[in-house]
Amino acid sequence: MTPKLNIVPFVSVDHMMKLVLAIGVERFLTELSDYIEADFRRWEAFDKTPRVASHSREGVIELMPTSDGEVYGFKYVNGHPKNTREGRQTVTAFGVLADVCTGYPVLLTEMTILTALRTAATSAVAAKYLAPRNARTMAIIGNGAQSEFQAIAFKALLGVDKLQLYDIDRSASTKCVRNLAGYGFDIAVCSSIEEAMEGAEIVTTVTADKQNATILTDNMVGSGLHINAVGGDCPGKTELHADILKRSDIFVEYPPQTRIEGEIQQLASDHPVKELWRVIAGQETGRSSDRQITLFDSVGFAIEDFSALRYVKRQIEKTGLYEELDLVADPDDPRDLFGMLLRAAATPNAA
Amino acid sequence: MTPKLNIVPFVSVDHMMKLVLAIGVERFLTELSDYIEADFRRWEAFDKTPRVASHSREGVIELMPTSDGEVYGFKYVNGHPKNTREGRQTVTAFGVLADVCTGYPVLLTEMTILTALRTAATSAVAAKYLAPRNARTMAIIGNGAQSEFQAIAFKALLGVDKLQLYDIDRSASTKCVRNLAGYGFDIAVCSSIEEAMEGAEIVTTVTADKQNATILTDNMVGSGLHINAVGGDCPGKTELHADILKRSDIFVEYPPQTRIEGEIQQLASDHPVKELWRVIAGQETGRSSDRQITLFDSVGFAIEDFSALRYVKRQIEKTGLYEELDLVADPDDPRDLFGMLLRAAATPNAA
Repeated sequence: MTPKLNIVPFVSVDHMMKLVLAIGVERFLTELSDYIEADFRRWEAFDKTPRVASHSREGVIELMPTSDGEVYGFKYVNGHPKNTREGRQTVTAFGVLADVCTGYPVLLTEMTILTALRTAATSAVAAKYLAPRNARTMAIIGNGAQSEFQAIAFKALLGVDKLQLYDIDRSASTKCVRNLAGYGFDIAVCSSIEEAMEGAEIVTTVTADKQNATILTDNMVGSGLHINAVGGDCPGKTELHADILKRSDIFVEYPPQTRIEGEIQQLASDHPVKELWRVIAGQETGRSSDRQITLFDSVGFAIEDFSALRYVKRQIEKTGLYEELDLVADPDDPRDLFGMLLRAAATPNAA
Repeated sequence: MTPKLNIVPFVSVDHMMKLVLAIGVERFLTELSDYIEADFRRWEAFDKTPRVASHSREGVIELMPTSDGEVYGFKYVNGHPKNTREGRQTVTAFGVLADVCTGYPVLLTEMTILTALRTAATSAVAAKYLAPRNARTMAIIGNGAQSEFQAIAFKALLGVDKLQLYDIDRSASTKCVRNLAGYGFDIAVCSSIEEAMEGAEIVTTVTADKQNATILTDNMVGSGLHINAVGGDCPGKTELHADILKRSDIFVEYPPQTRIEGEIQQLASDHPVKELWRVIAGQETGRSSDRQITLFDSVGFAIEDFSALRYVKRQIEKTGLYEELDLVADPDDPRDLFGMLLRAAATPNAA
């Protein structure tokens, strides 16, 4: 007997939660960061393409594929800011890994939770190279679904343990405080963005409106700050005033995608940016002075999802936290797909 | 309580086989053809893009998205001709439908079997408009996994009931004969392509090698023939001699994709072709004379998969032949993804 070629391991939302809890959120984020750094170091080995987006009035649905020549991965992800008003997630996602040699899928997993984790892990990896040394205080502007993951990633990788929270909806901030109880943070809920920014060495902007907003204005940004701009991630959706960008050294994931989707869509298309992978690979300098303003213009790139999928695949092999999905038709004779159908009719309960 | 937002209906291979058998292959193909024709008629309502392909030495992995503004669909599909030598399928696939308004997936299904069905249904739809009137004899060159589906679709839609089979591996032809017993065909297994072509009014070429082959040469193609060219479907993979193309009226699905992947990759990039949807919509003439050679240069387009996904979604709603997949994270408060994780820890068996 050949192995069960029809079966693809599937990680449900329930299994993903069990996996994260079994590993621990901090350790999961730390180990995932290692996978992301490892893949950024071999950036040139990947097929890269801007995501394939289908825009509508209400939001966007995207496919984000990549391959390292041995493994292929893609993520399906939507972004619908109005969803929260109807009790749904702004962003949901699922992802697939496949074997390049056979084309067969080898993993299907929920990625709503996993995307939150990989986004936070990528932000923290960038900050390791870009934030002021020994930064401990971070402002988080926007305290929705991504905020706690960001906080814990920055604590795990950088030792950030003082948070200054601001959200236009104060109940989002109090939810964030409640969820982070026991994680060892000193947290202040602030009444204005200015208050949240006071004394912060890092600011994470992670709001969700699909429009050009100005979460940060130029006067709020002092020298030496690291800006982790997470929320501006599609055409027409930005969070920072253009003047801030012009004072900052800007680091991006994949320039062709970030020029369309990131904060830098506000700038000329030849405005200089540095690629994060080059900093990680030691080809470019990250932070070079105490007074420099660094900006990670994060939009999320397929390689980060690929790293996350690789990490999850390894973890479910160790933990068994998955189901078996009958996804791939596998007739005994591969040329006899129709015969498989006929035989299913003959033995209806043994198919 | 809101409906179970986390659940996505999933059609496994087993359920797909049960669905096809419950409906009947001929009826399934006929009804599916109606969906395909209906979507071709409203072609202009769709977002169209050439598929997103990741090529490797051994094959290709593709994502094929489209949307009609209300529903979004995509298919994952691979093509690995060497797979059959290892007991695997050349082509496997799965697909997803999603709600454009929320971005939430609403169907996940196997599409290996479904792709075979939609490919055959599309061929038969094209032949309805392009084949000689009252054609009853079809040559099928290449008797692999797609051949029986083609035969039954042409019988169901056009009344083709005489088959002349040829394959370089005679056992593939005998497999095809065996599988089609009881479907009312008069079948001849032929020893050469010339023999199979004799008296045929339609020829379906559906071989699988990933290379430029010459299954049909110019001398084999007499006037009045309809050529249903299914096997040439990626760059460097063709089945017909270029001279045949120059004598034929060529009909294609989506020119920007077919120019890259179809038989017409052998021709100048401005060689005239007609779009099948325009013929179906009554904007262009299909077959206009008895002596005309018509060629459907089929490569498979996302809208056909979209039609197939729509059809399957409707059928599983009627039959209940699906499972429920816990694919979308759905916290009670959509801004509280992290809190959902914490609560899963508190109630590990109720997650």
